[in-house]
Amino acid sequence: MTDWNSLYASRMDGVVASDIRERMKLLAAREIIHLGGGLPDPEIFPYDALSAASQAIWADRALARTALQYAPSEGHGPLRTWIAEYLTRTGSPCGVDNILITNGSQQGLDFIAKLLLSPGDTAMVEIPSFIGALRAFDAYQPRYLGLPEDADDWRAETLSGAKFCYVGPDFRNPTGTTMTLDERNALLDLADTTGMALVEDGCYEQLRYDGAPIPSLLSLAIARHGDIEKIPVLQTGTFSKTIAPSLRVGWIAGPADAIRKLVLIKQASDLATSALNQMLLLEVVKTHLDASIAEACTVYRARRDSMLKALADNMPEAVRWTMPEGGLYVWVELPDHMDATVFAQRALAEHSVSIISGAAFYPAGASNVAVRRNTFRLSFSMIGADPARTGVERLGVLVREMAVV
Amino acid sequence: MTDWNSLYASRMDGVVASDIRERMKLLAAREIIHLGGGLPDPEIFPYDALSAASQAIWADRALARTALQYAPSEGHGPLRTWIAEYLTRTGSPCGVDNILITNGSQQGLDFIAKLLLSPGDTAMVEIPSFIGALRAFDAYQPRYLGLPEDADDWRAETLSGAKFCYVGPDFRNPTGTTMTLDERNALLDLADTTGMALVEDGCYEQLRYDGAPIPSLLSLAIARHGDIEKIPVLQTGTFSKTIAPSLRVGWIAGPADAIRKLVLIKQASDLATSALNQMLLLEVVKTHLDASIAEACTVYRARRDSMLKALADNMPEAVRWTMPEGGLYVWVELPDHMDATVFAQRALAEHSVSIISGAAFYPAGASNVAVRRNTFRLSFSMIGADPARTGVERLGVLVREMAVV
Repeated sequence: MTDWNSLYASRMDGVVASDIRERMKLLAAREIIHLGGGLPDPEIFPYDALSAASQAIWADRALARTALQYAPSEGHGPLRTWIAEYLTRTGSPCGVDNILITNGSQQGLDFIAKLLLSPGDTAMVEIPSFIGALRAFDAYQPRYLGLPEDADDWRAETLSGAKFCYVGPDFRNPTGTTMTLDERNALLDLADTTGMALVEDGCYEQLRYDGAPIPSLLSLAIARHGDIEKIPVLQTGTFSKTIAPSLRVGWIAGPADAIRKLVLIKQASDLATSALNQMLLLEVVKTHLDASIAEACTVYRARRDSMLKALADNMPEAVRWTMPEGGLYVWVELPDHMDATVFAQRALAEHSVSIISGAAFYPAGASNVAVRRNTFRLSFSMIGADPARTGVERLGVLVREMAVV
Repeated sequence: MTDWNSLYASRMDGVVASDIRERMKLLAAREIIHLGGGLPDPEIFPYDALSAASQAIWADRALARTALQYAPSEGHGPLRTWIAEYLTRTGSPCGVDNILITNGSQQGLDFIAKLLLSPGDTAMVEIPSFIGALRAFDAYQPRYLGLPEDADDWRAETLSGAKFCYVGPDFRNPTGTTMTLDERNALLDLADTTGMALVEDGCYEQLRYDGAPIPSLLSLAIARHGDIEKIPVLQTGTFSKTIAPSLRVGWIAGPADAIRKLVLIKQASDLATSALNQMLLLEVVKTHLDASIAEACTVYRARRDSMLKALADNMPEAVRWTMPEGGLYVWVELPDHMDATVFAQRALAEHSVSIISGAAFYPAGASNVAVRRNTFRLSFSMIGADPARTGVERLGVLVREMAVV
């Protein structure tokens, strides 16, 4: 019998299933109030537009042939052009050679790590960070450095040597917080001083419910350096939050030299993204993207408001939470002495409410990072006002119970 | 200005674009007879079945919702079950936990290398090998060892220490040759003795035009060890050659423990394969797979026959070639002293015929491998009888010209 354990690469040491996805599978059958997972609400997917786009492809043999044959590794040309024009229109002037199509932005994060990280290299990440980014980076065996919370601490003397810094400037997963314009500029300064790259996760950028948009790092860097070819930024984008996730279409935008290298990574990794899905997407975004974004913002804004109201109505004073201007998440801080992992376990076992404890969002082994064990993430993406109130009420009861003990 | 070159990981050193795909792009505009690339013929894609499957999904909101929401990382359950039943029916008894859905078999090869290779580990490969496999493996920085051509040389004393051996037993790319049953059993012996894994590329298995099928390594290993959980084999499969490539749906079959680890790799790499495409595929294979395979075999058998006849009619005696029983490729050996890279350049420049010279199919730096520079690959997948004859006639003229010099 083959001893597979002796064959696995060192990157697989200690790799375990993502708490979130495994939990979602286990819980599918029980009557749980899910305040943990951040799936987009399927009610807002543009079914009619996708159905019409699909029929148009099947009705035209030349289109159908293109949809089923291997696409170029860099992506379906007309979709790359559309994305470049969209970015140009929204403040980030670029061309088709600055765009690689990926299977959602998750694949973008994987490819960027594959491009930049050799084992032992340093990857800097926001603390806490999107779990999917950490798992993508883990495979390339970096040492992690945390980006300090306070921008006054972003100094080259203590933060040099990283290959890149990964951030989600808008309403990021898991905290829902947004970087200020000053912070964005400070981060660009740090990149210019240290020579590191910036990896900007742009996946929630379009989901803003209040406040004025702040320019992306991509946009600020192009303005600062005068040309996308000279910037330190690679930005990942996706249609997963604005159209539908299972078309699996996202992109990386950045300097053409890096994009050319990422195309070779794409080629060696899975050849190309589905041409059919790229063509479907293109037809839908051409006419429906603005309406889809508006619809998503309307739905999610109401849910965020319900969730924030439920927190205000039900949580003891010692509990704090973020006030996201967009995205899908609220980050909650329990009193310092409380362990949110225990809290999450009891919330599920005793109150049938699922949340994700904050410890999951910290990178392993970052020397300059203290895990805040009293934190957890709530998502409001799939939760109407009533279950949000019921779920948060129950969490409030549990906080009081555990805080007393 | 950012110095990106100082940031790229060591795996990117010396990485250059695949000769084949770059060339295809360059040549798209000229009147070239393409005997190089191995794209499937779009005439055999099952358009009507895919169109009907697509309409059925859009007509049912519950199905459409599943098609557009994130799929499980391991794949759409009903498709995994169908593949497990298909493999069981065709001689490889297994269950749903033995199947991971991937974006074509290219992603399967990438993930297997990610699972097994740390930098400096040894990867054994057939010589010559599929370029896509070599590029996937390259990213994990292995040392290469060639699998000797003669099975009498497959001895543990000289071939131990590899993490895996990669082979394509049926009509492999690029040679079109097939491993005998004795060779397959000898390779399983070698795996049992050395403890290495076997990576079986099954992508052409269904495209057999004559001769009796030979059991796959997967099937032989299950029979030998009595249980798929005990075997050393991971097999990659795909619907790219039998249905259509741009749905980007393939799979890995193997022991459940390795599959579970590969699911985590899938999760960190791109979360999941498109649910829409998996559902389309499932509907089509349920009713049309046998017909699609039969149609593909009829078309490609005729093309192979034309290509082989053109070679027999036009090539000087000193030229040899393989007689593939299936697949898409013929491997040609020029006289020993001829350099097929020069030959390919002149064929393109002077005769407007594109072929791929053999050197591209050898791994970099394998100490026990001598590159046979007098070889090239022909593909007949897209080439009717007339252009095949014209193209090979021109190659015959060029051989005579160069052999005289």
